Amino acid sequence: MEFSIQQIAALLGGEVKGDGSVKIHTIAKIQEGHAGAISFLSNPKYENYIYTTAASAVIVNKTFEPRQPITATLIVVEDAYTAFSILLEEYAKIVKAAKVGIEQPSFVATSATLGSQVYVGAFAYIGNNAKIGNNVKIYPQCYVGDNVRIGDNTTLYAGVKIYANSEIGRNCTLQAGAVIGSDGFGFAPQADGTYKTIPQLGNVVVKDNVDIGANTTIDCATMGSTIIEDGVKIDNLIQVAHNVSIGKNTVMAAQSGISGSSTLGENCIVAGQVGIIGHLNIANRTTILAQSGVTKNITKEGITILGSPAYEQADSIRMYVAYRKLPDMMKRLDTLEKKVKTMDVQES
Amino acid sequence: MEFSIQQIAALLGGEVKGDGSVKIHTIAKIQEGHAGAISFLSNPKYENYIYTTAASAVIVNKTFEPRQPITATLIVVEDAYTAFSILLEEYAKIVKAAKVGIEQPSFVATSATLGSQVYVGAFAYIGNNAKIGNNVKIYPQCYVGDNVRIGDNTTLYAGVKIYANSEIGRNCTLQAGAVIGSDGFGFAPQADGTYKTIPQLGNVVVKDNVDIGANTTIDCATMGSTIIEDGVKIDNLIQVAHNVSIGKNTVMAAQSGISGSSTLGENCIVAGQVGIIGHLNIANRTTILAQSGVTKNITKEGITILGSPAYEQADSIRMYVAYRKLPDMMKRLDTLEKKVKTMDVQES
Amino acid sequence: MEFSIQQIAALLGGEVKGDGSVKIHTIAKIQEGHAGAISFLSNPKYENYIYTTAASAVIVNKTFEPRQPITATLIVVEDAYTAFSILLEEYAKIVKAAKVGIEQPSFVATSATLGSQVYVGAFAYIGNNAKIGNNVKIYPQCYVGDNVRIGDNTTLYAGVKIYANSEIGRNCTLQAGAVIGSDGFGFAPQADGTYKTIPQLGNVVVKDNVDIGANTTIDCATMGSTIIEDGVKIDNLIQVAHNVSIGKNTVMAAQSGISGSSTLGENCIVAGQVGIIGHLNIANRTTILAQSGVTKNITKEGITILGSPAYEQADSIRMYVAYRKLPDMMKRLDTLEKKVKTMDVQES
Repeated sequence: MEFSIQQIAALLGGEVKGDGSVKIHTIAKIQEGHAGAISFLSNPKYENYIYTTAASAVIVNKTFEPRQPITATLIVVEDAYTAFSILLEEYAKIVKAAKVGIEQPSFVATSATLGSQVYVGAFAYIGNNAKIGNNVKIYPQCYVGDNVRIGDNTTLYAGVKIYANSEIGRNCTLQAGAVIGSDGFGFAPQADGTYKTIPQLGNVVVKDNVDIGANTTIDCATMGSTIIEDGVKIDNLIQVAHNVSIGKNTVMAAQSGISGSSTLGENCIVAGQVGIIGHLNIANRTTILAQSGVTKNITKEGITILGSPAYEQADSIRMYVAYRKLPDMMKRLDTLEKKVKTMDVQES
Repeated sequence: MEFSIQQIAALLGGEVKGDGSVKIHTIAKIQEGHAGAISFLSNPKYENYIYTTAASAVIVNKTFEPRQPITATLIVVEDAYTAFSILLEEYAKIVKAAKVGIEQPSFVATSATLGSQVYVGAFAYIGNNAKIGNNVKIYPQCYVGDNVRIGDNTTLYAGVKIYANSEIGRNCTLQAGAVIGSDGFGFAPQADGTYKTIPQLGNVVVKDNVDIGANTTIDCATMGSTIIEDGVKIDNLIQVAHNVSIGKNTVMAAQSGISGSSTLGENCIVAGQVGIIGHLNIANRTTILAQSGVTKNITKEGITILGSPAYEQADSIRMYVAYRKLPDMMKRLDTLEKKVKTMDVQES
Repeated sequence: MEFSIQQIAALLGGEVKGDGSVKIHTIAKIQEGHAGAISFLSNPKYENYIYTTAASAVIVNKTFEPRQPITATLIVVEDAYTAFSILLEEYAKIVKAAKVGIEQPSFVATSATLGSQVYVGAFAYIGNNAKIGNNVKIYPQCYVGDNVRIGDNTTLYAGVKIYANSEIGRNCTLQAGAVIGSDGFGFAPQADGTYKTIPQLGNVVVKDNVDIGANTTIDCATMGSTIIEDGVKIDNLIQVAHNVSIGKNTVMAAQSGISGSSTLGENCIVAGQVGIIGHLNIANRTTILAQSGVTKNITKEGITILGSPAYEQADSIRMYVAYRKLPDMMKRLDTLEKKVKTMDVQES
């Protein structure tokens, strides 16, 4: 892809200062700019870079007054940061749209249906009765099991595995190696010490605008559905167990896990490496800080919790502050005991 | 698949009350019942649902006495819960048995041998001299390296990767993305600060009736074998390092890890996000609670440990209870110091 | 592969005692020796095994004086341990070299270029303009996106996924299921509680001699590059977020994670299940012990840190030692309070 600076300025509603015919083919930070790249300057602390950058074009604020000559062509806009964000999105859309068609060899069951503008990469597998929406991009080596439904504009990067009967909404992005619908971890202990596997017959339902990270695993429900609501963002290497429900617009950072049948509210923020045990209810707008272990229901909305086990942040910090002083407290206790002993002796 | 209620009743040894000719094609919870689904009622606290459920059939106990009219057909059995479990298992067996044959394109080395009733999905790879037992189901995009052996009735879901020379037993289930036999993490530090990779020449031996979760990784031994004994159940995203041995019927929950050369006993229960350092021996029937870090051998059988580092549960809880009171203890210590100082002044 | 003991002795510069014509086809520990295997004896505490081992050959030190008859053929060398290490490496090289050629069906874009002695396994995908060096081994079901570069002698085991525009150096090994270049986890919160995905346009640059574990995920930079420097060794199931930089010869053990934009120095050692929050700088030669949570910059080189949150090891241990005595401290504080109260009463 290649656009002239003039074309980009038109897209952003900006004014060109310099040679608008120069071709741009990529995007770079101003301090890493190079020929053919476009950058932006918004934060004044980066201003010095604009006088030395090798970028072909720089997007700048209307209010920007150069103090030295600049070799790059400028695109002058109301708000350089916002304009740059728009540019990034347009770029991402173009990159995404570029993949269309069915690469060979791939496997599409005759009973599967594909929408328009679909990409099916080589070695992708689409099972019986699967329904794939419009503009869906299925990268190479993805597995889409029988009866799976995938909504419009969803992207599955290479090697995503979706078990039979799962449902994926619209505008979702699943990163490479994510697994949706694996069997829940359910075993009935037997008298002889062995375990009997409990059949897992439910599915996973992922609603719209959900992002799921690389190598993350979401188990199917034992019966019914494991549910990921609209707008949820899940990072890499996360475990979501059977029959979990994650509320709208909740965000989970990498390597966190949530155990069977727990319900996470809406607009929660879960930091990295958090664990949540099974059968809990976590209220809306709960923030759970990194490496916390959640062992109890959270009923009050909007609080921040911390620690393993996790308590409200202020409590946890108070305990932790005291913990740091523990060696000192021990010395003080020793001293006090000796003193009291001496006093006691004097008295008697 | 579709069965009449009469056929299902015959399978379960139950008596039909209502229209036995109605067709059933799926299973649902009683509160989520819909036309074509069969549910069960065992726990009296769900009784109200039976009068309103849209399920076509409900399995009930002999002792159940309806207090209102019921539209669903009933199957009356001795024990509704047990009958339903049997039904789930039969259903799972039928689903599993449905996949048979070699899909194309797949890659089966000419020196590999396949048993009867095998399923090899499209884009699956079976290497030289691999031996695949009867009724093995290898889903699309699995990799079975050279010389791998897989016992009867084992299922590899989509994208499982098994390195050369690994051995997998009978009746095992490996969820999507599991990796068996990756190189152990062994490096010899060199004088110049670099590391030299230590060749990993052993393998992984997985015995019978083992379940392995999605995207879990089990490294091969440096020499000899990493061993997963009969009946072990391993959840998703678990790390099992080189030369580890996991005893019979031990269960590990998601995101736990066990480091090189450690031995975990039989019938242990390891909760989620537990870490076990290298070269340890963990006694039989040890329970390790969530997020614990095990740093020492456990020699006494049947105990429960907790914490990072982990101690016996009662000790850990005693410490933790005191920890919660630490801010209060600090205040008490301050008060006491002041008081003693005053007393001391008074005395002198 | 099969070699005579005589051939192996020649490779190691050793002297044969016994039948040098016996064929060797594998390597085993002396206590697990069997016909056709070669073992070694270096540590005197294993000496007894040499008199009973079924191994066909044993490498021994020049200084070794047998006290009983030995059936195995001996290869006598200066240093048996070193000789055995050399043998392991040669064996690993031979195993690796054995895979050459393009298996079918595979997908190699016409604009991609492949070096000599390359292996491309079946169902591997190599995208547009990808550049693959000499002696690169790409196992089945790997995905190499558009414009990816892979240096000489690098191995990608089955199912590795490398997103478009990533760069992988020479002599690297990526274990099965590793994901390189997945989108960084970046979302801008909106006024209505939803999140807007921030396009991730950077890439991942992996330098030379890097090892990356199974199912590990390394996200691309938002802009610029996520960088893994020469000689870094990363274990299984590790998360490396967008715009992270990991310095030369740093080692990370399984299930650790490092958040966005953090920089890890050179020759650091990160143990298992460690978490490092975003935007930190960790000095060279920092050692981070298992399950630690790093929340602050580490500016002093060469220190060891521990705990969640992590402090210098001596401080953390001092706190922890006091923590273990907390229940006892509480009793002592109770006793002291009572005593002081009594004394106070006596005085007044």
